[in-house]
Amino acid sequence: MNATPLNELMSRVRQFAAARDWEQFHTPKNLAMALVAEAGELAAEFQWLTAAQSAAPDAQQMGRIRAEAADVLIYLVRLADELSFDLLTAAAAKIEENERRYPVDKVRGSSRKYNEY
Amino acid sequence: MNATPLNELMSRVRQFAAARDWEQFHTPKNLAMALVAEAGELAAEFQWLTAAQSAAPDAQQMGRIRAEAADVLIYLVRLADELSFDLLTAAAAKIEENERRYPVDKVRGSSRKYNEY
Amino acid sequence: MNATPLNELMSRVRQFAAARDWEQFHTPKNLAMALVAEAGELAAEFQWLTAAQSAAPDAQQMGRIRAEAADVLIYLVRLADELSFDLLTAAAAKIEENERRYPVDKVRGSSRKYNEY
Amino acid sequence: MNATPLNELMSRVRQFAAARDWEQFHTPKNLAMALVAEAGELAAEFQWLTAAQSAAPDAQQMGRIRAEAADVLIYLVRLADELSFDLLTAAAAKIEENERRYPVDKVRGSSRKYNEY
Repeated sequence: MNATPLNELMSRVRQFAAARDWEQFHTPKNLAMALVAEAGELAAEFQWLTAAQSAAPDAQQMGRIRAEAADVLIYLVRLADELSFDLLTAAAAKIEENERRYPVDKVRGSSRKYNEY
Repeated sequence: MNATPLNELMSRVRQFAAARDWEQFHTPKNLAMALVAEAGELAAEFQWLTAAQSAAPDAQQMGRIRAEAADVLIYLVRLADELSFDLLTAAAAKIEENERRYPVDKVRGSSRKYNEY
Repeated sequence: MNATPLNELMSRVRQFAAARDWEQFHTPKNLAMALVAEAGELAAEFQWLTAAQSAAPDAQQMGRIRAEAADVLIYLVRLADELSFDLLTAAAAKIEENERRYPVDKVRGSSRKYNEY
Repeated sequence: MNATPLNELMSRVRQFAAARDWEQFHTPKNLAMALVAEAGELAAEFQWLTAAQSAAPDAQQMGRIRAEAADVLIYLVRLADELSFDLLTAAAAKIEENERRYPVDKVRGSSRKYNEY
């Protein structure tokens, strides 16, 4: 893997865990569980907001949203590190698949197609 | 924001949505909901596995894990894009906070401290 | 525990698992993981809908919502069974706590208080 | 619907929300989002535990697990109430479907079949 900022984050998170001898807790299973729990905390920030409110969070809400999003990313890079795959490569592959699966001329503006997305 | 591969991913995902007129569905609230649903699918890949099995997925499992992790990252960058914050900066801030909160000499190897993490 | 329909469901789900020798997979940890994954599938049914659309799902959507809600309930009773606690008692205790915590005259109609709920 | 304790819980939760004028927040979409967030909190209780530890939580852990499971049930009955479907009927239908889909003689003790469950 090349030296992207995402890989730098991965190294830093790995060192954080190693320094505390916490790698023993970082099985892929546990990391996936921690990730979905953090994703739930991120969702909780938006649960009672209208669509419009969710697009204009106040400073306090933004602080919490950034922190929860950071937690999700931290566990995601930790998981990719433990299972030795590159997140950016995986994401690029997924977008290419989606581009084939949802041709612009067939799905444009269609919420039905989108619901099946 | 500078031109990191993560920002390139963000642009590509934005263009994917714009080309399909799907930005109308991408309120932060909806994106957070889609993100936690994808995190749930990622968790499902590991739910019946032992810790040891989760660290050695077969090729088919790895393919699904990569695809689900990619979906989480895609919605995460889409959310950060819509709310105009930088994911890597947010993650760095969170790690610094964790470093202060969990000093190595106090929490090393302690699962109790870790449970409160 | 007394013979409520919820306890009948608990027995039936236990027998379903026992007949298939699947109890070995039903550690509380695994059940909690399966439960959040099913909750994610339930959330996915609503992720691109507006608030109004979510209140009026068509027959096909209702079928999927019912099935996902059923999966959540099934894992929830399985978890309560494995950890030997009564869900209805736990829910009653939680409501009493919420009634004390959110006095009607202080929180009525307040989304701010509600956001802290 | 008949007068089961689960329906009594449903009425009580409805009254709790109505007394606070909080029904305005209880769109099915918002309730599904709150439910998955609570399911995430329940998962978080188990995330660093081994399978064995998860089967023997201490009193403090059990208190939190009961409270989180209660929150999941409360949002689940609130959702079923808003969408007017009976949770126990939906769960019974799902078990019957699973009994047809996973015949005892074909899937007994098989984790492979179970993973596809």
